[in-house]
Amino acid sequence: MRDTPFLVVDVELLEQNLAGMAAHARRLGLALRPHAKTHKTVEIARRQLAHGAVGLTVATVAEAEIFADHGIDDLFIAYPVWAAGPRAERLRALADRVRLRVGVDSIEGVRMLAASRAVVTVAVEIDSGHARSGVAPAEAAAVASVALDAGLGVDGVFTFPGHSYAPDRRAAAAADEQRALQTARDGMLAQGIPCPLVSGGSTPSVEHTAPGLLTELRPGVYPLLDAQQWELGSADPGRIALTAHATVVSRRGRRVIVDAGNKALGADRLAFATGFGRLPDHPEARIVALSEHHATIELPETAAVPALGTVLRLAPNHVCSAMNLADRVVAVHPDGREEEWAVAARGANT
Amino acid sequence: MRDTPFLVVDVELLEQNLAGMAAHARRLGLALRPHAKTHKTVEIARRQLAHGAVGLTVATVAEAEIFADHGIDDLFIAYPVWAAGPRAERLRALADRVRLRVGVDSIEGVRMLAASRAVVTVAVEIDSGHARSGVAPAEAAAVASVALDAGLGVDGVFTFPGHSYAPDRRAAAAADEQRALQTARDGMLAQGIPCPLVSGGSTPSVEHTAPGLLTELRPGVYPLLDAQQWELGSADPGRIALTAHATVVSRRGRRVIVDAGNKALGADRLAFATGFGRLPDHPEARIVALSEHHATIELPETAAVPALGTVLRLAPNHVCSAMNLADRVVAVHPDGREEEWAVAARGANT
Repeated sequence: MRDTPFLVVDVELLEQNLAGMAAHARRLGLALRPHAKTHKTVEIARRQLAHGAVGLTVATVAEAEIFADHGIDDLFIAYPVWAAGPRAERLRALADRVRLRVGVDSIEGVRMLAASRAVVTVAVEIDSGHARSGVAPAEAAAVASVALDAGLGVDGVFTFPGHSYAPDRRAAAAADEQRALQTARDGMLAQGIPCPLVSGGSTPSVEHTAPGLLTELRPGVYPLLDAQQWELGSADPGRIALTAHATVVSRRGRRVIVDAGNKALGADRLAFATGFGRLPDHPEARIVALSEHHATIELPETAAVPALGTVLRLAPNHVCSAMNLADRVVAVHPDGREEEWAVAARGANT
Repeated sequence: MRDTPFLVVDVELLEQNLAGMAAHARRLGLALRPHAKTHKTVEIARRQLAHGAVGLTVATVAEAEIFADHGIDDLFIAYPVWAAGPRAERLRALADRVRLRVGVDSIEGVRMLAASRAVVTVAVEIDSGHARSGVAPAEAAAVASVALDAGLGVDGVFTFPGHSYAPDRRAAAAADEQRALQTARDGMLAQGIPCPLVSGGSTPSVEHTAPGLLTELRPGVYPLLDAQQWELGSADPGRIALTAHATVVSRRGRRVIVDAGNKALGADRLAFATGFGRLPDHPEARIVALSEHHATIELPETAAVPALGTVLRLAPNHVCSAMNLADRVVAVHPDGREEEWAVAARGANT
């Protein structure tokens, strides 16, 4: 028996999710390079590779270092890394021991990277509608050209269609992604720059990915899933493999408070969310308030109000945030065996 | 030189904030028992005690254990602890080595606590308008009476006027707090139950605390402060002692992206917030979007757009969340000396 709150990975559901995405990528004929920022966990990374992933995507040099320390040797930092200060030396050391691809989205960034003398290839980040980092599709060739002139290998282009995080925009985001990557790739080819890599994908949009253009998919959330994917319509609640176990500590009327707050679940709440997470076993319940150590759960008239001391399972809104709050998770195997998995890259932000 | 992002504590501002709140409590004639969930840091806790705090408030048994391990021996777990499973034994062991007060807000919770045989006193939590945990003021005496019958010492009553987190409700929340605590205390006295402890306070409301009724203040955020306190009007931006240092990695038009996302800052955003944090050195800027490793900062026409590679200082919306994401922070002393402080109770949720 463990004191709540703690995070539980259902290994059977995890395996089903891993197998499902691997099959989807195979059907499309695409390489799968899952984003490991979701789980930050060596055990899950190894399972992704066992299901045929070609390598991992990560967000930071620190994440890459940790997965490299555990023998994972093909990594893509899908982020416009600014290779200054100690980071330049870290990149150089990392590139000496793994195959490393790095994102770029500016000429200045390319020049910093080249100056670091890290032996990496680059991929140019394209903004396909999420309006975050990335250049406009038509600008990709200019950045790639500077990279080639600076002596860096250019793999191609990538994007994150993050505007897929809206229930009615999943298919449209996939179409935007396709269009933006096509423009970027065509622009490179028109300049005589080869573009073997065309990389995209997000968990909400990936079922709408069309075959023919993309060569690589980088979804992150799919192994574990969360309340956001449930409410987006991209995952059935029965597939959510990561839940927080929490105890009812206070009760009043149709509301109970459990001891998992935003320091366990994360505070993420996108506009479409019905609350601060969901309860897979009580789909009628809503998490109406969340503070650091309190989640306030409201039950409708039709549902029984759980007694004090009851342990409930909560799906966080955003599993990437919840995993990044935990030093370890409890993995429950199909035979009931429990194991602790370290969230090895927790907090690896640099 | 350090790779961004990282958190920095300005020790001079920290000391000013500590001294200011200590003086405020002294002026009111109240004991100060700061909530350590904000900083989770032994070095800051010791400074609070040096400024005259009577002990610490914490949110969890795990936080209490960690501060006890560092010699802090008077602790209040201001939370309706459910003393089941391993937690019962942990409470018992903890109460053997420190003076321990525990929150209760139900008769069942009191009975679990008594059954644990932990040598603790209790304080009854009152809901003063925040609508989270806590009993109605008139119910305090009933819970206290059960505690006494069960052989637990009763210190008195406490509340958290968390509805002070709205710019126009700070004074009103303090008045609600006063009224609720008065009713609860009077109810206990009417039943012949002594109520030496009347504990309240939150950083936004504490300047409105009236003398005469309360005996103890438990603000948390005041040593470090954050963008929420700035936007609430309870702190000048020049007093914010904790900032994330982050590098501009991408730039487009009047927007820049820095490498501190919600995995460094936290995702908290209350209704009144103008964005996902603020920049104390650029009050005109807004953090218009935040994802795991990207903060998107928008500058008005009147401001220069920082160059790629520029390091900016960001005040998180909620410092408690940001501290709980970091394993350590950089403390910068007035003489420029830098020191790393461990966030010792990071992740201590159980």
